[in-house]
Amino acid sequence: MNNLNKGAILILSGPSGCGKSSLLKEMYKQIDNYYFSISTTTREIRTGEINGVDYHFVSKESFEADIKDDNFLEYATVHNNYYGTSLKPINKALEEGKLVIFDIDVQGHDLVRVKLDDLTTSIFITTPTLGELEKRLEFRGTDSLDVITNRIKNAKSEIKSLDKYDYFIINDDLDIASKELISIAIASTKKSRLFNKNNIIKSWLQ
Amino acid sequence: MNNLNKGAILILSGPSGCGKSSLLKEMYKQIDNYYFSISTTTREIRTGEINGVDYHFVSKESFEADIKDDNFLEYATVHNNYYGTSLKPINKALEEGKLVIFDIDVQGHDLVRVKLDDLTTSIFITTPTLGELEKRLEFRGTDSLDVITNRIKNAKSEIKSLDKYDYFIINDDLDIASKELISIAIASTKKSRLFNKNNIIKSWLQ
Repeated sequence: MNNLNKGAILILSGPSGCGKSSLLKEMYKQIDNYYFSISTTTREIRTGEINGVDYHFVSKESFEADIKDDNFLEYATVHNNYYGTSLKPINKALEEGKLVIFDIDVQGHDLVRVKLDDLTTSIFITTPTLGELEKRLEFRGTDSLDVITNRIKNAKSEIKSLDKYDYFIINDDLDIASKELISIAIASTKKSRLFNKNNIIKSWLQ
Repeated sequence: MNNLNKGAILILSGPSGCGKSSLLKEMYKQIDNYYFSISTTTREIRTGEINGVDYHFVSKESFEADIKDDNFLEYATVHNNYYGTSLKPINKALEEGKLVIFDIDVQGHDLVRVKLDDLTTSIFITTPTLGELEKRLEFRGTDSLDVITNRIKNAKSEIKSLDKYDYFIINDDLDIASKELISIAIASTKKSRLFNKNNIIKSWLQ
């Protein structure tokens, strides 16, 4: 029995280095019927990146045509490149009753909420302290010092938006934090506002 | 690190026979740091009932003194007996950061929400159909036909309030439904509005 009108949306935000990717990996072991939203971009594909996995890589012309046709849930320009979320696969996944998962920043979160607030549950994830975040970014060894400095600056600014989010997870222990994330993901599909109340009552009273 | 201002409240409602007790038993295996709210009543203690487990059994005079002193979160009169929820143990459990669990009806839910909405998460639980509820009540064999008829009548009326609740669980399969309940219980303690935002930001930016 599926009385859901549609699927649901789960947004994860949090500073780079807070452990979102590890948490998502744990979550995917436990939940199914989800769709992870992949952004579309006009920037060059980098070595090791896969089209359709890391991003949907498209031309500037194609992106601008989609803007004209109102095909984006949200988009932005960063360093002369477009980044955006195409509406089509999101709507398809929602129609199929899936949980649509976004890993986006505070600005993206706000834009999704404006359009699809009713379906949306959001989580802000951080490390216990800023020092711990810095340590993790250095330990990861993938970013230059400049990039790390910039990530820390962004993190300081983004933490101030945490009350825009429904949930707050401190990723101190991966086991605990992933259990919390999975719980919120399951709960996000059981919200009463996602159900068609009239259908439920009708079928229940039969 | 505990950045919660206070604990949280989880309300379970649903028709008698929907399986709340079995679900709660499963939940208690998985979560700790909770306090199950026990109602206070002036009705006679019945054979098999234990004071402080089934109810807090008190005299009419004591109950009325507590009403005067504004010591109830909510109370009602049923068949000349008082039933109510004392505020003191609830406040103590909240101060200790516990998850306070209520098994109350729609009317009780509404009264708790009025006073403690910010802390509250609520779940409406039903069987898949009304026929299934009837079957379970008959199978349980604890109620007379009159009582069952009355429970069905109440159930028909209560289902109409499901959109007052945050979550909706159809208890078709105990394993699935208890997983959903436990998920919602864990999620209910991670709501961002339960955290002291200023403390979080201050400690995080240190």
